[in-house]
Amino acid sequence: MMSEESNRFMLEAIRLASENVRKGLGGPFGAVIVKEGKIIATGVNSVTKDNDPTAHAEINAIRAACRALSSYQLDGCDIYASCEPCPMCLGAIYWARPSRLYFAATKQDAASIHFDDQFIYNEVALPHVSRSLPTQQMMRDEAMESFRLWESSEVKKQY
Amino acid sequence: MMSEESNRFMLEAIRLASENVRKGLGGPFGAVIVKEGKIIATGVNSVTKDNDPTAHAEINAIRAACRALSSYQLDGCDIYASCEPCPMCLGAIYWARPSRLYFAATKQDAASIHFDDQFIYNEVALPHVSRSLPTQQMMRDEAMESFRLWESSEVKKQY
Repeated sequence: MMSEESNRFMLEAIRLASENVRKGLGGPFGAVIVKEGKIIATGVNSVTKDNDPTAHAEINAIRAACRALSSYQLDGCDIYASCEPCPMCLGAIYWARPSRLYFAATKQDAASIHFDDQFIYNEVALPHVSRSLPTQQMMRDEAMESFRLWESSEVKKQY
Repeated sequence: MMSEESNRFMLEAIRLASENVRKGLGGPFGAVIVKEGKIIATGVNSVTKDNDPTAHAEINAIRAACRALSSYQLDGCDIYASCEPCPMCLGAIYWARPSRLYFAATKQDAASIHFDDQFIYNEVALPHVSRSLPTQQMMRDEAMESFRLWESSEVKKQY
């Protein structure tokens, strides 16, 4: 699995991360998406630049790759991330369904420079009543009506 | 915490979810973001319409609310989601740091109409070597250089 080619793609993700810091554009995170041996999209952290808390390197790269492929799925793609994806990005990666994920620094490393990745991993694993974010369930019956509409819909695009 | 006002906002999130299905635009999911008693942004699932696997209702609503506030943080905001957020959206909610989350249908309900939320919750909780997504760590030393750059940067915007 590891190869010179993999090293080259990961080095590019890391180079993008460092460049992002040097330019003062965002956090030290880069990502590269590869299909058939070619980089089809890249992303860097642009949360503060874009006023978008979802603009992590992986999310930006996934959105760019999907635009490039005109698809909401990254079939046959590999994702290289300079740091272990946070739960948001890992969730996005699962929804995008690439073939493989490579990462370099760990979530503990991210915590060491004061990013909340490890904290959010802990929170996601808790039942909602135990999380630090005050969370309340309500109106499940009313919401199930939307789900029934979906199940009986003849115009839906299942995914 | 629960109030007539909360009911009204959740009903709007659910209405958006149902409308999205009726129009054939995406999955049965809607979200509403409220600040100081007013809806400042809404979102619906637009994954297939926009070819964007990250375009869940909550992510779309968070991005719209942050645009409206010109901020990457949702200070003092409440999020109403017609379904329990998936790990991607829950992660995004933590990064956005709203005051409170309300949800209606559960992740088990989402699984019952064939969405992967529960599966992804299970995967996120596993060590990466045990996940169904093939995942490989590599080049941590090289990536740590980006982190050291971040720590010593004088132009960074910490967040």
